Amino acid sequence: MMSIKETMLSIVALGGVNEIGKNMYVVQYADDIVVIDCGSKFPDESLLGIDVIVPDISFLLENQDKVRALVVTHGHEDHIGGIPYILKQMNMPIYATGLTLGLIEGKLREHGLLRDSELHHINSDSEIDLGSMTLSFFSTNHSIPDCLGIAFHTPEGTVVHTGDFKFDLTPVNEQYADIHKMADLGKNGVLALLSESTNAERPGFTPSERLVGEHIEEAFIKATQKIFISTFASNVHRLQQVIDAAVKTNRKIALLGRSMVNVVSIASSLGYLKMAEEMLIEATEVNKYEPHRIVVLCTGSQGEPMAALSRLASSNHRQVEVLRGDTVILAATPIPGNERNVARIVDNLFELGAKVIYGSGTVTGMHVSGHASQDELKLMLTLMKPKYFIPIHGEFRMMHQHRLLAEAVGVESDNIFILKNGDVVDIQNQVASQSRKIPTGNTLVDGLGIGDVGNVVLRDRKHLSEDGILIVVITLSKADGKILSGPDTISRGFVYVRESEGLIEEVNRITVTEVQKLLEENVSQWNVYKQSIKESIGRFLFAKTKRRPMILPIIIQI
Amino acid sequence: MMSIKETMLSIVALGGVNEIGKNMYVVQYADDIVVIDCGSKFPDESLLGIDVIVPDISFLLENQDKVRALVVTHGHEDHIGGIPYILKQMNMPIYATGLTLGLIEGKLREHGLLRDSELHHINSDSEIDLGSMTLSFFSTNHSIPDCLGIAFHTPEGTVVHTGDFKFDLTPVNEQYADIHKMADLGKNGVLALLSESTNAERPGFTPSERLVGEHIEEAFIKATQKIFISTFASNVHRLQQVIDAAVKTNRKIALLGRSMVNVVSIASSLGYLKMAEEMLIEATEVNKYEPHRIVVLCTGSQGEPMAALSRLASSNHRQVEVLRGDTVILAATPIPGNERNVARIVDNLFELGAKVIYGSGTVTGMHVSGHASQDELKLMLTLMKPKYFIPIHGEFRMMHQHRLLAEAVGVESDNIFILKNGDVVDIQNQVASQSRKIPTGNTLVDGLGIGDVGNVVLRDRKHLSEDGILIVVITLSKADGKILSGPDTISRGFVYVRESEGLIEEVNRITVTEVQKLLEENVSQWNVYKQSIKESIGRFLFAKTKRRPMILPIIIQI
Repeated sequence: MMSIKETMLSIVALGGVNEIGKNMYVVQYADDIVVIDCGSKFPDESLLGIDVIVPDISFLLENQDKVRALVVTHGHEDHIGGIPYILKQMNMPIYATGLTLGLIEGKLREHGLLRDSELHHINSDSEIDLGSMTLSFFSTNHSIPDCLGIAFHTPEGTVVHTGDFKFDLTPVNEQYADIHKMADLGKNGVLALLSESTNAERPGFTPSERLVGEHIEEAFIKATQKIFISTFASNVHRLQQVIDAAVKTNRKIALLGRSMVNVVSIASSLGYLKMAEEMLIEATEVNKYEPHRIVVLCTGSQGEPMAALSRLASSNHRQVEVLRGDTVILAATPIPGNERNVARIVDNLFELGAKVIYGSGTVTGMHVSGHASQDELKLMLTLMKPKYFIPIHGEFRMMHQHRLLAEAVGVESDNIFILKNGDVVDIQNQVASQSRKIPTGNTLVDGLGIGDVGNVVLRDRKHLSEDGILIVVITLSKADGKILSGPDTISRGFVYVRESEGLIEEVNRITVTEVQKLLEENVSQWNVYKQSIKESIGRFLFAKTKRRPMILPIIIQI
Repeated sequence: MMSIKETMLSIVALGGVNEIGKNMYVVQYADDIVVIDCGSKFPDESLLGIDVIVPDISFLLENQDKVRALVVTHGHEDHIGGIPYILKQMNMPIYATGLTLGLIEGKLREHGLLRDSELHHINSDSEIDLGSMTLSFFSTNHSIPDCLGIAFHTPEGTVVHTGDFKFDLTPVNEQYADIHKMADLGKNGVLALLSESTNAERPGFTPSERLVGEHIEEAFIKATQKIFISTFASNVHRLQQVIDAAVKTNRKIALLGRSMVNVVSIASSLGYLKMAEEMLIEATEVNKYEPHRIVVLCTGSQGEPMAALSRLASSNHRQVEVLRGDTVILAATPIPGNERNVARIVDNLFELGAKVIYGSGTVTGMHVSGHASQDELKLMLTLMKPKYFIPIHGEFRMMHQHRLLAEAVGVESDNIFILKNGDVVDIQNQVASQSRKIPTGNTLVDGLGIGDVGNVVLRDRKHLSEDGILIVVITLSKADGKILSGPDTISRGFVYVRESEGLIEEVNRITVTEVQKLLEENVSQWNVYKQSIKESIGRFLFAKTKRRPMILPIIIQI
């Protein structure tokens, strides 16, 4: 571990740059470390069998005595999803707003960690003293309520982390952003700004969530039968607008999907969702009402195969049915990678005779982004007037575009740092430099294992997935090398043995030939036998089938 | 097999409906069967290890004596990719235009099938007599030259198959569509129209390919160093426009990527691509020219990991390098599913300091679709005035939208048939009905195997890919059941054994316990031993790891 100078301010990305997901940043001054967010990310198709990815926190483990707090900006998975896995490795006090804490608590309860956690409820007016730093906060707009930006006031100067944000000047439920606080921070001097880059490729200004509300209301007025509407459960603002439209059109609401029920319950009890209790009905009661008196609010807008919408589309839901003439609204744009699953659902809904409102939110008006577009990013940069700028929360091209925006509003090109995970920006005497790197990366979670699946295992899974496995077992006498049993060949995922007896017979013959040849040559290392059987069978099978199954010779000596 | 009445006209989809890919349609009158197209499709992620999917042609195999011809509308993979695999099962005469035949010949040569194939060169003026039917043709516009629509003149009436089309009123290289022939067909009466539905969800009129040419030329004029431009090799029109822009800006062209070299060679030799020979240079010569005298035309616009663009972006190409200040143009919109790979390439190109023109073609102007949008589909329906309409070539929602367009221009709702693969529309005495179904589906190609990988093998591959395999081998004495060797446990893709010795020891212990218990109970069926070992180990591992590897007990008796 490298030591940090006592009066040095350091900013580290442990996760969240060059990727969308598993956000985790560190601000350190002298001996005080504050962690921002602890997200998770879903594995891509190359990480076979992996459930979720969280940041590698070796750096924090080595500096446990210095870690003062985990401060969480908001309650999305890419900001809170890693918390249970990290807390299993080390405990630390957690600071977050009400809704964010509510969602974190749910996770900790599931993992049996709630009792031992130290949770602190803060809001945008809070101030926290953490050793040499004081933290203050400002509210931002985003696709979930109760989001914070953070200002770290250190002896070296002020560092601002925006969290995820957009500027919604007409927000739902009066969740206004603290634009005056942001202006004050800028006026008083921001040494370094960390600002999110998700939409840095998009020109213009992201529309207000209100726009979606208007389109929902229009669609509700037009619909003559049941309405199904699917969106992200965590988008409480949008849920509120669905509720408002249901009230206006005199419809009851049924909730489908575990996370929808969960978020509505947390958000209502904490006051983030305003709804008369009698608005809600059980899924089992849907059929007791006239169709034009019903809204079903459900999960699955990203085409998740096990979620409510997918089951409805394939007529597989136990309690509720989509019938000819019903309206189905997908109030979400498919995230890249999910298009095919969403398309399959739309196909099925049309087959059922439903009227489906689907496609890009920009076209349907049924979705707006929760992230700032280029003009809003420039507005944030202009408000903060930072000396140094670090684009975060995005893939390389997004951070690159964000850099161009910063340059356009006057940030010095040399004062902009595009980081990779593990890169450190050190600031001393008001001068920033980037020369150090700390070890970090992906920690893979598979079942109960955190970080125990490595490259060898993944490479094997990939190999197995493509052409399967072929196991050849042969038993030899220790005394004279005579074959006592076998060779027996078993295949899984390669060919269905009954259909390929000739092939398997030839594999057995090759095995015997190889073994006898090596015995005659008095070769005694079994690894040589295994390698040679593997190669001969491999060559034979590739010539015959153009496939390369994993070949596993097992030699038993009695 | 159902017999077909002697004077009945039948239309069958063997592939291409409810999917994008593997197009194959059949028109049969009495004893004469004509096949239209023979495409392939790429497997989705659930079909592990499968290389390509082609139509199941059981119906044609059962009716070999009646199959008169395979007529191919154009040279895209989803129309010709299945030909080699089908010809291996049955031979038939193939009719296609020059460029299409050139591309088919390449495939047949690779598969060693060219010598035995019967290929007929046709053009849009050809007429073919095939038993009771006469076929005539009309040219269409599409993203590859030399495309045909087909009219089947039968005693029952005329059936028209559009092939893939758009209406490009200002086509490149004067590849005009035969709009007057289409009008004549309509005037003389079209009994049934089969029209493609790819863009039936898109409002408006697809822009002309010329638009892309204008944007390419602008970008070429602006660029001060090397230009890299990547697009679909088969889009010969676009290649022509790249060549034209290179001529105008006084740049030489180097080709990278096997299919680019291949298509340019075929298309030039057949006269579809007009280019002075001295325009082309070898990749090895690129560095001999000043950067502003070079265009590199390459494959990989869909982010294919092994293609030229991907290798350039990761500085992995042996002959050519992307340098700071070079321009890279992605002249293609990513096909759904390819976004992530394309994004990774853009990230890498920005890291290299390139200026990258990327994103949706609608925004960059660097791509237009080759398929008709809603207004063009309505134009085709209006020209043809069909009595019966069968939307083809699309997923369900596209065919559904195409149906709505047909209804809007006056086709009777009851006269529109949305088919599934295998569905048959029979027409007799000018009355169409859909009641029969013939067996069809996906034929999976894995290596040299056509159709030999079934559900069992795929299920095993899936299982293996998620949690790997654990093999337990134990050798027992035939005489007294004593353990002669083992148990030995081998795992692949589950855990890396060195890191989990305790776990493996416990697995071995469980195996011994199970075997001894069953021996004491005098159980003699080895299947019972295997099942019981499998279950006990499975329970233990799931409790310890929350993973479910495939467990394969091997019991050897000596």
